[in-house]
Amino acid sequence: MDFLSRYLNMLEPELAARSISGFENLYKPIDYLLKTGGKRIRPALVYIGYHLFKDDYARATAAAKSVEWFHNFMLMHDDIMDKASQRRGAQTVHKRWNTTQAILSGDAMLIQAYSFLSVYERDIYNQLIPFFTQNAIEVCKGQQWDIDFEAAATVPLENYLEMIRLKTAISMGASIKIGAMVAEASAENQGVLYDFGTALGMAFQLRDDYLDLFGDADQVGKKTAGDVVENKKTALYISALQQADESQRKILTGWYAKRLPENSEKITAVKALFEALGAPGRVKAEIKRYTDQALRKLKGLKAPDKRVKEGLDSLVLELLNRKY
Amino acid sequence: MDFLSRYLNMLEPELAARSISGFENLYKPIDYLLKTGGKRIRPALVYIGYHLFKDDYARATAAAKSVEWFHNFMLMHDDIMDKASQRRGAQTVHKRWNTTQAILSGDAMLIQAYSFLSVYERDIYNQLIPFFTQNAIEVCKGQQWDIDFEAAATVPLENYLEMIRLKTAISMGASIKIGAMVAEASAENQGVLYDFGTALGMAFQLRDDYLDLFGDADQVGKKTAGDVVENKKTALYISALQQADESQRKILTGWYAKRLPENSEKITAVKALFEALGAPGRVKAEIKRYTDQALRKLKGLKAPDKRVKEGLDSLVLELLNRKY
Repeated sequence: MDFLSRYLNMLEPELAARSISGFENLYKPIDYLLKTGGKRIRPALVYIGYHLFKDDYARATAAAKSVEWFHNFMLMHDDIMDKASQRRGAQTVHKRWNTTQAILSGDAMLIQAYSFLSVYERDIYNQLIPFFTQNAIEVCKGQQWDIDFEAAATVPLENYLEMIRLKTAISMGASIKIGAMVAEASAENQGVLYDFGTALGMAFQLRDDYLDLFGDADQVGKKTAGDVVENKKTALYISALQQADESQRKILTGWYAKRLPENSEKITAVKALFEALGAPGRVKAEIKRYTDQALRKLKGLKAPDKRVKEGLDSLVLELLNRKY
Repeated sequence: MDFLSRYLNMLEPELAARSISGFENLYKPIDYLLKTGGKRIRPALVYIGYHLFKDDYARATAAAKSVEWFHNFMLMHDDIMDKASQRRGAQTVHKRWNTTQAILSGDAMLIQAYSFLSVYERDIYNQLIPFFTQNAIEVCKGQQWDIDFEAAATVPLENYLEMIRLKTAISMGASIKIGAMVAEASAENQGVLYDFGTALGMAFQLRDDYLDLFGDADQVGKKTAGDVVENKKTALYISALQQADESQRKILTGWYAKRLPENSEKITAVKALFEALGAPGRVKAEIKRYTDQALRKLKGLKAPDKRVKEGLDSLVLELLNRKY
């Protein structure tokens, strides 16, 4: 992702909390989580959204930082909710410290995400804050559905798609739109970029679901079949369950009621069942649908910077790993 | 508190989340906590801060709601951190539901608190958001110190005072200032009201600490000696410990290392020790100092509405239960 490195190299030294004297305990877990890295796709999208319209993309740094802090606030709290012990190959904050600290440092992260935006001029600030807030509420709603779905016996695929739209995809749309907002792009262009980023986010999340079982190990970047081991209801599972007859349903839900190691026969059995039920094909079709939607949106964008637009085009294909 | 009822009667029907279809699980715990009541001092202060300058105080409702939602967000998360099972005579959200739900609904409350402010005109909104944000960060810092102090062997009284200033007092100062901000009061008056509300908040919290052991039962409104039972390091405890010699320190910290029922000899022993060490007198002197500071600030206020100002004056004395 060479196209991104100029943005992320600019962001990285600005990202830390730089502990405030007397409140190290509040900020240390924040710096710790930020230092574990992650893909930084959202802040990169902020920079791109700005750079499409204006050259001095350093001006997008505060917004990029805000978006990344918000994203990490959610991760810090999500990890408590999911009882996750690892994130990005490191201990989660609530494991390394405790739940109390992860709640409070997470809260502070969310509030600080707002504070970073105050560097922008009034007219821009006045658009940023309500939009940021509305997006943040949507993310909470997505998280609520995610929790509700874990407890539900069946989830229609369309509800699952709406959940990942709220929880994951729109924050990618919001990120690129925020960059365009800071660059004072037209409302039309802002809308196109929001739709583009959201479609990209959908394709991205569905690809993540798909690659858990059907990707090359080097494409995946995480342990294969991790979702199956953790009994996560991904697009593959939901799509398979929708096509299953009574006996197949019993077998599949039976496997998902057990917690088994990653080298167990469960993985092979589940994978075979997914294939028999046509799940990988249908999920792939969804990925294609959203990728095409993203690329189509991008074509409609009236942005002056051709090089950034071309970079974005190839970034989409690279992120989604499709060669044309 | 008859002076307040016109404001709070206006607020109450507006306060609920009114669950959004499909997301009842997210909003139900919010409505539940809001319905348990509480003193509503902060939203009342928002209305007063507005009404001192302008008559149509209904316009302050969105800000009053925002402040009360923020306050309840903090309580929802605090109760998880404190492992509290009761709040305002009802089960806490994390007990009634679970920790996951209390984290997420709390997050949504904080974000919604921001969203309510978007009804105000740009110039006002542009002042409200950074001020609200700065105050919110201070509250997190206060909460961090509170956590740190629970683990510390000794805490100087001045640090304790700074902790309650951040955690409790300034949000009262911020509330009345926010009301004045919406009323477009002068920066000078806004500053006076912030200082007034903060001093009031200090007196209020210290009085709460004091009344745990040294108030009439009808003044207190909560179980007597609850702080002692829960080994809470209040102003009384910290002030006593500061004056204790080595043997007294051992006795006091000894009692505070044990969890005993409310009718135990611990209460009597701790109370006698506090008195022997002059703690109640010193805490009373602090309450008087902050009350006087609040009243002095109020005298310096250049607000047009005399009746509201007089009402505020008697509210201070009523809240702090001092008759002149």
